[in-house]
Amino acid sequence: MTKSMRWTEGFIAVDWGTTNRRAYVVDGSGDPGAEFEDSKGVLSIGKGGFPAALAEIRDRLGDKPLLLGGMVGSNRGWFDAPYVPCPAGIEDLAKGLVWPSEREAIVPGVSFIGNGRADVMRGEEVQLLGAVAAGTIDENALVCHPGTHNKWTLLRHGKIASFQTVMTGELFNLLKQYSILADLLKKEAEPNDSFRAGARHGWSNDDLLAELFSVRARVLLKQAPAEDSASYASGLLIGNDVRIGLATPYAAQVVVMGRPELTCLYAAAIEEAGRAAIELDGEQSFVAGISRIAEVI
Amino acid sequence: MTKSMRWTEGFIAVDWGTTNRRAYVVDGSGDPGAEFEDSKGVLSIGKGGFPAALAEIRDRLGDKPLLLGGMVGSNRGWFDAPYVPCPAGIEDLAKGLVWPSEREAIVPGVSFIGNGRADVMRGEEVQLLGAVAAGTIDENALVCHPGTHNKWTLLRHGKIASFQTVMTGELFNLLKQYSILADLLKKEAEPNDSFRAGARHGWSNDDLLAELFSVRARVLLKQAPAEDSASYASGLLIGNDVRIGLATPYAAQVVVMGRPELTCLYAAAIEEAGRAAIELDGEQSFVAGISRIAEVI
Repeated sequence: MTKSMRWTEGFIAVDWGTTNRRAYVVDGSGDPGAEFEDSKGVLSIGKGGFPAALAEIRDRLGDKPLLLGGMVGSNRGWFDAPYVPCPAGIEDLAKGLVWPSEREAIVPGVSFIGNGRADVMRGEEVQLLGAVAAGTIDENALVCHPGTHNKWTLLRHGKIASFQTVMTGELFNLLKQYSILADLLKKEAEPNDSFRAGARHGWSNDDLLAELFSVRARVLLKQAPAEDSASYASGLLIGNDVRIGLATPYAAQVVVMGRPELTCLYAAAIEEAGRAAIELDGEQSFVAGISRIAEVI
Repeated sequence: MTKSMRWTEGFIAVDWGTTNRRAYVVDGSGDPGAEFEDSKGVLSIGKGGFPAALAEIRDRLGDKPLLLGGMVGSNRGWFDAPYVPCPAGIEDLAKGLVWPSEREAIVPGVSFIGNGRADVMRGEEVQLLGAVAAGTIDENALVCHPGTHNKWTLLRHGKIASFQTVMTGELFNLLKQYSILADLLKKEAEPNDSFRAGARHGWSNDDLLAELFSVRARVLLKQAPAEDSASYASGLLIGNDVRIGLATPYAAQVVVMGRPELTCLYAAAIEEAGRAAIELDGEQSFVAGISRIAEVI
């Protein structure tokens, strides 16, 4: 029996990130199956804990083969699945699968080296190429993937041609937790007028680390109310991110893929930069992508 | 007896920052006197602790009047000394002194509102105007003041005309302590070739939060050795800072004032940006500035 014959019987797909995991039953018929999400991300498990963590998934969703994507394939995960270089399509991911046993496979990440830069992604590639496979985005789209490390990916003919990571989410979290701005950033950012003003500033200027300090100084000098600070600072950071992302070669379509509470902020900032963006749910695209990988194994 | 008559008998000058304080005996003759430095910064003292902290200074250096500069005059310090607006010279600082009693005075900070920005400084103003009073810098210089919050100050006719704060030092510390780059940033940054390459990138580009992630990706993909990361990242951040600072109106002279281990990095980055910078020790300028304030009280 070949590997591909086994997968067509149905399998469990896992999007296994740094701090969370989501598991889905994907059966041969293509119907959506049982699923669950928990906080057993890669960092909470540790090297020796993966056999038990895998057994728990099978206890909950059935004794099926596992197809694993995300940070589970990093050097902090279960097995290190080496990066596939750009340009990378679904078939390249399938060829690069790492097989800890015949009943488990790990999807590789993608690397980019070029233009004096180097970059890596792990997890987003399944969502991106899944959306292409499902026909929900253009084969030549520019896709923004907000999160701790936002990715701007340029697709060409349905493959990942190049991408660039911007540390926006991580910086915002650091500022919120540890910086001199911490007490001003407690509120949730919303795509309101303050956010849009920040986004316009970040899009039009290259003084991010100065304007962030100005957020605090304006409040001290009674030039702005403290309650606008979180949305303005978020807009500023995301506007700066959009400035970097939209500097890539022209793409006919701009897509923002991820959790709705983040995609709405990026879509608003992209609008302030004069472009329109399509918002897409990342997890739906993950299932589409991992199903397509299983088909071409 | 007027206040000024009392100060000419000699006094103790204190540069009282967030995490440190330095105290100096300044006597009427202008000779350097006794001094000490310790880690009893404003944050370690707390509102009720200032009388004891002042008494300790007098125990060590003599029962003289005290002239206090720095964060001791902030809302986290002993008494809140309101900001003096730009343009601000030595006389403006002297007029803005806050007198908790006749034997203690606190130097105000300086504020800037203009060009859609707001900014504040507290502590640097004494050093800056002290260097002008001592004749060690040009009356129309652009002065860079590295630290947790780097200040770029434009002097005009010996007064602080405008300034801009860049959160470079704070961001570098956050990245070093808490970020995904933490393990790559453990080494001390040095003004070597890697630093200069980073400085050139930061000066020439506006993709700071992307290039920072590239530092890690290059090491993962074996495009750069891990041991170069700290200097390169420091160069990148300081180059980005210099890009912001040198965008101010043209100044005939660029000065970097502060601790030598920081001024040498900024001077190297300014050199990569095609300008020359004069390095100056901040504490010497502090004594010059505070002495001049005492003369004009």
